[in-house]
Amino acid sequence: MGRWEPGAAGRLAKAALELFVERGFEQTTVAEIAQRAGLTERTFFRHFTDKREVLFAGTGQLRELLVREIEQAPPGELPIDLVATALRSAARLLQQRGEFPWQRQQVIMANVELRERELIKLAALGAAMASALRARGVPEPAASLAAEAGMTVFRVAFERWTAENCEPDLAKLIQESLAALKAVAAGR
Amino acid sequence: MGRWEPGAAGRLAKAALELFVERGFEQTTVAEIAQRAGLTERTFFRHFTDKREVLFAGTGQLRELLVREIEQAPPGELPIDLVATALRSAARLLQQRGEFPWQRQQVIMANVELRERELIKLAALGAAMASALRARGVPEPAASLAAEAGMTVFRVAFERWTAENCEPDLAKLIQESLAALKAVAAGR
Repeated sequence: MGRWEPGAAGRLAKAALELFVERGFEQTTVAEIAQRAGLTERTFFRHFTDKREVLFAGTGQLRELLVREIEQAPPGELPIDLVATALRSAARLLQQRGEFPWQRQQVIMANVELRERELIKLAALGAAMASALRARGVPEPAASLAAEAGMTVFRVAFERWTAENCEPDLAKLIQESLAALKAVAAGR
Repeated sequence: MGRWEPGAAGRLAKAALELFVERGFEQTTVAEIAQRAGLTERTFFRHFTDKREVLFAGTGQLRELLVREIEQAPPGELPIDLVATALRSAARLLQQRGEFPWQRQQVIMANVELRERELIKLAALGAAMASALRARGVPEPAASLAAEAGMTVFRVAFERWTAENCEPDLAKLIQESLAALKAVAAGR
């Protein structure tokens, strides 16, 4: 088997998610993931540090997208609008990943350690957005409040998207969640 | 030395925080904490599971206070006002703890693992408030959004309180942080 397997990372991720859903995250081994994907363990470890990384490998891409959207927005945009635009872009990215985000959420929610890791990931994404806002001249505490409130809006929308599975448009759920936050903050 | 030491938990916590600040959390042993407090390791382990628990032992009391404030508030209060009132009560509790919250924050911020644990603690407090709001009939997503936005407001205020050390009134900083969130959400 050659050093480079076309689409190997995608096949491994798909096989891993199937097994995590079927057997549970704890009960699945890297050997089983490789076997299901028709690849070797060595190939697995060329793409992922461990089985947990299959679930968190997309974080870097998501962070870069959020930061870039805030950096490249036209001048004069309000902080909360910058954050909302960035989150809608993230929604479009996630919607391109097919079943992966749903399966992933199911696996994360079933495991305390993964839920904690996910929380830490979301906080890091919020901190990256706050930093990008400050780089545009948004002062504190507005930068942190907009970024972190935005992550709360995103999390609530994302959980509805993966739980109800009735509204296919995550970006629309983010808009609704943001409108709900504005109503709560305004005391309506 | 008798089984019961009056004020032992407080003396151990004070000694532990002093040592964590002086030497770092990682570099401090339970034996050193007990020695500094003039007590035995056995006494330490009657009060705390490990040295990390010294930093997180107050979480239960804080959670009970936040939940009780939301449960016992008069009917008709808005979700965000319920959360704000609960957080101001938490502020008064923290202000009674003298130097402890400042020293604790310094130790937490210097250690990645403790920062992650603190994040998980704050999320758990937010989830407890969201649950108390739902028990009062506040629907989702308003309950989660009010509770989690409240925790963001609290965190921003708490970091200002421990970092700047110029405004002694944490409850006032929480009011200012909440006003800033309302302005951000309203797009001002």
